[in-house]
Amino acid sequence: MLLKELRQRVYEANIALPQHGLVKFTWGNVSAIDREAGLIVIKPSGVDYDLLSPENMVVTDLDGNVVEGDLNPSSDLATHVELYKAFPNVGGVVHTHSTEAVGWAQAGRDIPFYGTTHADYFYGPIPAARSLTEDEIDRAYEMETGTVIIETFRERDLDPMAVPGIVVRNHGPFTWGKSPEEAVYHSVVLEEVAKMARFTEAINPQVEEAPQFLMDKHYLRKHGPNAYYGQKGQSH
Amino acid sequence: MLLKELRQRVYEANIALPQHGLVKFTWGNVSAIDREAGLIVIKPSGVDYDLLSPENMVVTDLDGNVVEGDLNPSSDLATHVELYKAFPNVGGVVHTHSTEAVGWAQAGRDIPFYGTTHADYFYGPIPAARSLTEDEIDRAYEMETGTVIIETFRERDLDPMAVPGIVVRNHGPFTWGKSPEEAVYHSVVLEEVAKMARFTEAINPQVEEAPQFLMDKHYLRKHGPNAYYGQKGQSH
Amino acid sequence: MLLKELRQRVYEANIALPQHGLVKFTWGNVSAIDREAGLIVIKPSGVDYDLLSPENMVVTDLDGNVVEGDLNPSSDLATHVELYKAFPNVGGVVHTHSTEAVGWAQAGRDIPFYGTTHADYFYGPIPAARSLTEDEIDRAYEMETGTVIIETFRERDLDPMAVPGIVVRNHGPFTWGKSPEEAVYHSVVLEEVAKMARFTEAINPQVEEAPQFLMDKHYLRKHGPNAYYGQKGQSH
Amino acid sequence: MLLKELRQRVYEANIALPQHGLVKFTWGNVSAIDREAGLIVIKPSGVDYDLLSPENMVVTDLDGNVVEGDLNPSSDLATHVELYKAFPNVGGVVHTHSTEAVGWAQAGRDIPFYGTTHADYFYGPIPAARSLTEDEIDRAYEMETGTVIIETFRERDLDPMAVPGIVVRNHGPFTWGKSPEEAVYHSVVLEEVAKMARFTEAINPQVEEAPQFLMDKHYLRKHGPNAYYGQKGQSH
Repeated sequence: MLLKELRQRVYEANIALPQHGLVKFTWGNVSAIDREAGLIVIKPSGVDYDLLSPENMVVTDLDGNVVEGDLNPSSDLATHVELYKAFPNVGGVVHTHSTEAVGWAQAGRDIPFYGTTHADYFYGPIPAARSLTEDEIDRAYEMETGTVIIETFRERDLDPMAVPGIVVRNHGPFTWGKSPEEAVYHSVVLEEVAKMARFTEAINPQVEEAPQFLMDKHYLRKHGPNAYYGQKGQSH
Repeated sequence: MLLKELRQRVYEANIALPQHGLVKFTWGNVSAIDREAGLIVIKPSGVDYDLLSPENMVVTDLDGNVVEGDLNPSSDLATHVELYKAFPNVGGVVHTHSTEAVGWAQAGRDIPFYGTTHADYFYGPIPAARSLTEDEIDRAYEMETGTVIIETFRERDLDPMAVPGIVVRNHGPFTWGKSPEEAVYHSVVLEEVAKMARFTEAINPQVEEAPQFLMDKHYLRKHGPNAYYGQKGQSH
Repeated sequence: MLLKELRQRVYEANIALPQHGLVKFTWGNVSAIDREAGLIVIKPSGVDYDLLSPENMVVTDLDGNVVEGDLNPSSDLATHVELYKAFPNVGGVVHTHSTEAVGWAQAGRDIPFYGTTHADYFYGPIPAARSLTEDEIDRAYEMETGTVIIETFRERDLDPMAVPGIVVRNHGPFTWGKSPEEAVYHSVVLEEVAKMARFTEAINPQVEEAPQFLMDKHYLRKHGPNAYYGQKGQSH
Repeated sequence: MLLKELRQRVYEANIALPQHGLVKFTWGNVSAIDREAGLIVIKPSGVDYDLLSPENMVVTDLDGNVVEGDLNPSSDLATHVELYKAFPNVGGVVHTHSTEAVGWAQAGRDIPFYGTTHADYFYGPIPAARSLTEDEIDRAYEMETGTVIIETFRERDLDPMAVPGIVVRNHGPFTWGKSPEEAVYHSVVLEEVAKMARFTEAINPQVEEAPQFLMDKHYLRKHGPNAYYGQKGQSH
């Protein structure tokens, strides 16, 4: 893939965030990785969405060192870098402060699996990562945010491609996917599933999670070799 | 009715879903039936709403076998087929994952009858169908979703034309009507009534259902030979 | 005032309802009265908002008998007529099924006075009228809806011009004002105050009503001979 | 700064309020101060947002006496004046009745610090000021509203530039900033943080506040000499 094309796609993925109602002001960022070229493209830090362009996206190497661009990269870049290093099939990462997902992040609770909307995209509860310790925050806040996410997936033995997102305690959601477009798609899903779960518990405080076999059916209807949802070759 | 006209109407009914805020991405579908011609027209599976056209609607026979169209029909087609077979006066069926209705579906609760907005269109509580068993899911998931809906109506002795919708446990709402347009209308009503009921219980957790005679009055004000709401010949 | 002008104003007041997000489909109606001419102008029943025009508003006498117009008047006309008869300073009446107000109506609770947004327009809690009895519903449903509203104001000794609205149990809100425009304004306020009160109780379930002297100050800052909010001659 | 420029900026800051969904009708106002010129510019009272212009903004001296303009200034002017006198680094003040913030104001509770969205802009819980006494209301309602806000900051030893807003019991939010634009920005943040906190407590009623070291990290990442968020010279 040409770098020019990746800049364009990362730009479009970033402006999709406010269009989906997931960010206010500059509170979100999307990146993508070209593993062959050894490059990451990410939104610049604190720049208004209507001033973004393919040209002012920031290009870094795989360690997050800027190789092209006059602007500072998103302050969350180090988190993105950690995720790309730990999750080798991830092609795009999104971070937002979307309201419903932040509700679960601040509450410090996994988003339970209550129904098929969830199962279509997340194979299991959406995990809540623990808060960072004072020491982690002092040392390298954004990098350690990535470390805590990765720790959560390792300790729970989760496949990041089957559970493409998380809420970080007292902070907010991170999602990812094979591409930046898919990562944005998963941000929309996470926000909607978070809202549905809030409503579900308000309506029935004693509700229990849905059965595992429903999870299996719905997830595998859309994913894997026996998927039959959509048209051939579609990712959703 | 000409097939061309039915394609147009099903197309328009489908694009009405995102306009009413009932679907994100491709998470909804509308079909219609022409019982004389022995044809069902339904949205293709997983195609973005802005790529839909009257021409790419999929046409099937009454058993759901595709007779016209290059695209796969909605994966929920088998549910629609079951409903058309069991409910002979239904002319259109809608399935969505609209947020408020999913809240009740995931909570596994009937939507109680709390007021006149409900009574104007649903003659009684909106039922929550049970979850499918593992065996039903393995056998024929989408068809069995229809079976469970029909079972709910038979066991409770409900008239599907007087209670034109249901929420399926852990899944979401299905609605229907004499036409695809009416089925969409009922989806909007179900979503709004679901929201009102959530608010009602938050404001008064001890609230009881409204009296049956209010249900009778409001429903019959709009439906049946003595209806006097609206203008002559109107369906709403 | 010329009838032509009144038709125009009632038309504009009706289309303001969906613009303010207070109605779906045809679920609302506004009327106005010209007491000198002995005429009421009201929305026709069940007609889509985008098909309304000044010309198809329905004109009736003070008892609700149609004197001009080919369409049926709103089925709620008899409620409007009762309110005009009982409340001599009312110039316009609005009925909607707006979601937040219906929440309180279905919950059967007065909307408590919690703050200044409320006090600026409603001098006291917004009352919830009782449900109609079976007998009242059988006899003359819409007229008796008016009777129950009036009964509530009489029993509680409320001034309808100081408390320009009510929620009717299991039904929804009615508001009024010196003009149809003011009645619409009060519908917007009632909906917003209903939402604020729902949030308030969720945040603090033990909250108590605000003090009476704050009510006095805020209401009288905007109303009466010593009002000083706004510009001279303004009603809001 | 030329007065003409300040009028333009105050005008734009005022019309930003409905664009951000923070006000209905005329329920909000923004002012700015030019301390060198000894002038305050504020919205006129009760004028519709679409009738506002740079020219009809009202100009007063530092005690709130009108020096330019035919319209009455916002009835909340005296509150703004008090805040400018007590908080010497404030350049703009905003008052609204935004729904979520009013929820906390009416509930009489501080908005707790639950996460990083909050910490990015408010260094500590957002305080709820006490209700005014009857005596204070009778004496000089709007001025005393300012007095109560200032009292809250003094008693709690808060820096108004680090905690740039408050909710006043039974009333609503006031925010401020170095400029009118920043004051509006803080109004949007306060409303969003208020909503997130409501969701957080609904999802986890036993939730505790986030740790102080997270507050320190996030606030200082954006503010002060070691800030590294955004581009050089940016205020956000």
